[in-house]
Amino acid sequence: MRNEISQATIERLPLYLRTLGIAETEGTEIISSDEFGRRLGITPEQIRKDLASFGQFGKKGVGYYVTELKNRIAKILGFENSWNVAIVGVGNLGDALAHYKKIPELGFNLVALFDVDKKKIGKEVNGVVVSSAEDLTKVVAERNIHIVILAVPTDDAQDIVDSLEGSTVRGIWNFVPLNIQAPSGIRIVHEDLTVGLGSLSYHISQNYTPAE
Amino acid sequence: MRNEISQATIERLPLYLRTLGIAETEGTEIISSDEFGRRLGITPEQIRKDLASFGQFGKKGVGYYVTELKNRIAKILGFENSWNVAIVGVGNLGDALAHYKKIPELGFNLVALFDVDKKKIGKEVNGVVVSSAEDLTKVVAERNIHIVILAVPTDDAQDIVDSLEGSTVRGIWNFVPLNIQAPSGIRIVHEDLTVGLGSLSYHISQNYTPAE
Repeated sequence: MRNEISQATIERLPLYLRTLGIAETEGTEIISSDEFGRRLGITPEQIRKDLASFGQFGKKGVGYYVTELKNRIAKILGFENSWNVAIVGVGNLGDALAHYKKIPELGFNLVALFDVDKKKIGKEVNGVVVSSAEDLTKVVAERNIHIVILAVPTDDAQDIVDSLEGSTVRGIWNFVPLNIQAPSGIRIVHEDLTVGLGSLSYHISQNYTPAE
Repeated sequence: MRNEISQATIERLPLYLRTLGIAETEGTEIISSDEFGRRLGITPEQIRKDLASFGQFGKKGVGYYVTELKNRIAKILGFENSWNVAIVGVGNLGDALAHYKKIPELGFNLVALFDVDKKKIGKEVNGVVVSSAEDLTKVVAERNIHIVILAVPTDDAQDIVDSLEGSTVRGIWNFVPLNIQAPSGIRIVHEDLTVGLGSLSYHISQNYTPAE
């Protein structure tokens, strides 16, 4: 059994992965924790500590082997599981997420889209045909969906999530700004963009005096 | 002077604001920290501690006055400053952000959009005409832009940010998956959606055995 890993460490792993991907593209084979830290704005100590939780990586006094470490982190994050993904709600956000290149790049398969709007049902978005939200549980079972990305209006959100109980769905990535409760056995990660925007506004408001 | 507030506290304030907004819409006038915590999935102790960093809120044994607390938090987050916002890059993500209702709801003014694509320049997106990215510094000055939302391809990102040095821009909300460096005097908040998706994949991968 692996030791308990902190949520903060888990959330840094995708950033490590991204930096290693860029370094690999540049042809870098070995990266020191100093250089790694400089690129990320994270201390080398924090990086060494995070990676040590998962076992022995890198070579003392040399650095980390970029491709090896990248593959190991992708594996730790479960990206080798080829998760099947559906987006529920094809409004502006759902549409942007359907085109979000990181989803296929990280090994996820976007296999279904759902909407209630008859004008959207049957249309293709980035190569995937939009299904009727009425057929959600049927299509989820047929296509063995593991992850649902929730991008619907707030009113419908909890009912949709409840209907996934006992299905093949193991995780929900929730963009609906509500504290949606997931059924037992389904993990939920809440994505709330007002957190980033609010944090930015807070910081730039310090010592700010509006012009007359 | 206010005491130093932790980043974690700042990032919970938008969630508090959201919950208070919903409670207000429902007609709730007073909310206890227990009920507040239940709605958010955060302990009442954490909520009381966070809010105490900003001064005296609520009434012991009664709860928080919903509208008053909501207005106070919006003020702490600087939402009363009516920040002027521009989105640079009107691809799928930029387009979705141009339609993101929370931007006007929280008091931000979306006053400019920029793109390099001649087919997009001059078109309206959600009531705002797309300007040429060549005119960025000119339009930023004319419209007194405070916040730039960066949603461009990775190659262009650092050059765009560098060109904002010495302008009216005080903050950048960065959706480009790079560790962009902001010029002095400009605050940057990085938004990386792979963090949420990676965290979800990590958690659902624990004890997962793919079907044969």
